Amino acid sequence: MIDGKTALFGFVAHPAKHSRSPKMHNLSFDYWHINARYLAFDVAPDGLADAVAGIRSMGIAGVNLSMPFKQTVVPMLDEMTPRARRIKAVNTIKNVDGRLIGDSTDGAGVFQDLQNQGVNLHGQHVMILGAGGAGKAIIAAALDYDVTSVTVFKRQNQTYAQVATWLAALNQTTPIEMQIQPYEDAAAMLRVAQASDLIINATNIGMTEAGLPVTLQVMAALTPAQTVYDVIYQPLETAFLKQAKAQGCAVHNGLGMLIWQGALAFKFWTGKDMPIQAVAETILN
Amino acid sequence: MIDGKTALFGFVAHPAKHSRSPKMHNLSFDYWHINARYLAFDVAPDGLADAVAGIRSMGIAGVNLSMPFKQTVVPMLDEMTPRARRIKAVNTIKNVDGRLIGDSTDGAGVFQDLQNQGVNLHGQHVMILGAGGAGKAIIAAALDYDVTSVTVFKRQNQTYAQVATWLAALNQTTPIEMQIQPYEDAAAMLRVAQASDLIINATNIGMTEAGLPVTLQVMAALTPAQTVYDVIYQPLETAFLKQAKAQGCAVHNGLGMLIWQGALAFKFWTGKDMPIQAVAETILN
Repeated sequence: MIDGKTALFGFVAHPAKHSRSPKMHNLSFDYWHINARYLAFDVAPDGLADAVAGIRSMGIAGVNLSMPFKQTVVPMLDEMTPRARRIKAVNTIKNVDGRLIGDSTDGAGVFQDLQNQGVNLHGQHVMILGAGGAGKAIIAAALDYDVTSVTVFKRQNQTYAQVATWLAALNQTTPIEMQIQPYEDAAAMLRVAQASDLIINATNIGMTEAGLPVTLQVMAALTPAQTVYDVIYQPLETAFLKQAKAQGCAVHNGLGMLIWQGALAFKFWTGKDMPIQAVAETILN
Repeated sequence: MIDGKTALFGFVAHPAKHSRSPKMHNLSFDYWHINARYLAFDVAPDGLADAVAGIRSMGIAGVNLSMPFKQTVVPMLDEMTPRARRIKAVNTIKNVDGRLIGDSTDGAGVFQDLQNQGVNLHGQHVMILGAGGAGKAIIAAALDYDVTSVTVFKRQNQTYAQVATWLAALNQTTPIEMQIQPYEDAAAMLRVAQASDLIINATNIGMTEAGLPVTLQVMAALTPAQTVYDVIYQPLETAFLKQAKAQGCAVHNGLGMLIWQGALAFKFWTGKDMPIQAVAETILN
C-alpha cells in the first residue's frame, strides 16, 4: 500500500513504456516488504538534463537508464562505480541525498547469470562477438570476474582503432589477457573459438539481423565442453543458440542478463537480493 | 499491478511525507481501474523549478502542491483555471503533453462538500473568517457557486488594504456582493453573523492557536438555521464547532474540504468522480 513515505524508483528511456523493469522491481519490493514503487518514464532525447534535475529535487531514489541516455547522463553524475567508469556509461543511478552515483550492471549481469546457473568462471577463456554498448559493458565487467582471457571480435569499421586503444588501456589494469581481432578474420575467429570456454554474442545478429554471429566453420567446431551465451532474448532461442545446442553446447539466452542487470541494480539500491526465480516467471508471462 | 504504462501523479510539498493524498488517490485509481499511481515528493523550497522541469520531461501526469509552493509555482505554468487565476495560487497541476495547467481546488472543496451533504447554497449569505491562503481560496471559489453575498473578516494588519483592493476588484466581476470588515469590529461581526446562513472559519484558531475565531457574542447568537464550517480537521471537532453544535447549528469539519479538494483534482485529471465514502473511511483510519 502506497503512502506518503513510499520511495520512487524508475526507468528512464525513449521509448520506455515497453519495459519489463517495473514488474521486476515491484515484485522484488513486495517480496522484501520495501515501501517503494518503480515506474517507467519516457523522456524525450533532449529532456535528460531536466529529468535528472527532477530526480534530484523530487528525491527519486534510483533509476535505470537505457537508450539514448546511458552515455549522455555521465557528465550529470556525482560519482561512478569502477565498471561504469571503464565504459563511461551507466544503466543505474542511486540517489544518495541528492548525490547521484552511476553504475553499469548490464555486463556483470551476464557473469552473475552464468555463476547463478553453476558455471565456474575461474580460468575461462572468453570470446566476445561485438563491441557496441552491450559488448563493451560485458568486456568491462569481465575484469571483475576470475576469467583468464577475453578476446573481442569487432568489425573493422571506423570505431575499430578506438576500441583497440580502449582494450589496450584496460589490459594495463588487469592480469586478464585482453585482445581484439577483426570480425572479418575467419581464421582467427575459428582459432579463438576453438580455444574458448565461453562464447558470447553481443551483436544484434539473430534479432534485428538474420543469420549467425560466427562463421559456419565456427558453428561446426563447437563442442559440448563449451558454453554459448546470446545477449538476445527476443527471440528466446536465436539461430546461434539453436545450432550451438545441436552441437551439444550449454546455451543461455539474454533473459538471464536482463534479470541479473536488474538484480544488481536492486542490490545497489536496497542491499537485498532480487528473488530471481519469481522474477523470471513473471517476466516470461 | 504497475507496468511500463502506469502513469505517475504526486504530491509536491515541504514537508510532504505526512500526506494522506497518496492513499486517497491510489484508492480512487484502483476503484476506476485506472493504471496510475500517486506518491509524495518532499521538495526543498529552492528545488521547485527543477521539480517542475522533471514533471514536464518525465511526463508526470499531474501533481498536487502545498506549502511552500502554491504561489511560487504560478510563473512556471502554461495556463490556469479561472478560480486559480483569481488567487494567483494553485494546488493542482495537470500535465497535458508537457503543457502544465494549474487549478485551485481547495476553496471549491468547501462548497462541493456542503452541496454533497445536502446544503443548498442558492441565495445564501456567507461569512468567512480569515483571508490567508485557505480564506482567499474559499472567497475566490464562492464566485463559482450560487450564493448571494460573501463578507470577509480579516485582521487589520499590513495586508488588510491589499485584500480589500483584491475583493473590490473581484466584486466588479460578479453579481455576488463581496465585502471586507475588520476582524476587530465586534459589532460588525455580530451583525454579519446574525445575517449569515453559512459561517466558515478559515483561520488557524482552534488548531495552532487555542480559542474561538469569533466573539462570545457571536457564539451566543448562533441559531439552528445556520451552518458552521471549520476548515480545520486536526482536531476533528474544534471548540468553535463544539459550541456551534450546542447552539443547534449544522456543523462541518475540514475533512470534507480535504477530501473534496482531492476529488476535484481527481476529476480534473481523470474526468472521473472520486469514491467519496470509501476515501473518507480510509482517511479516518
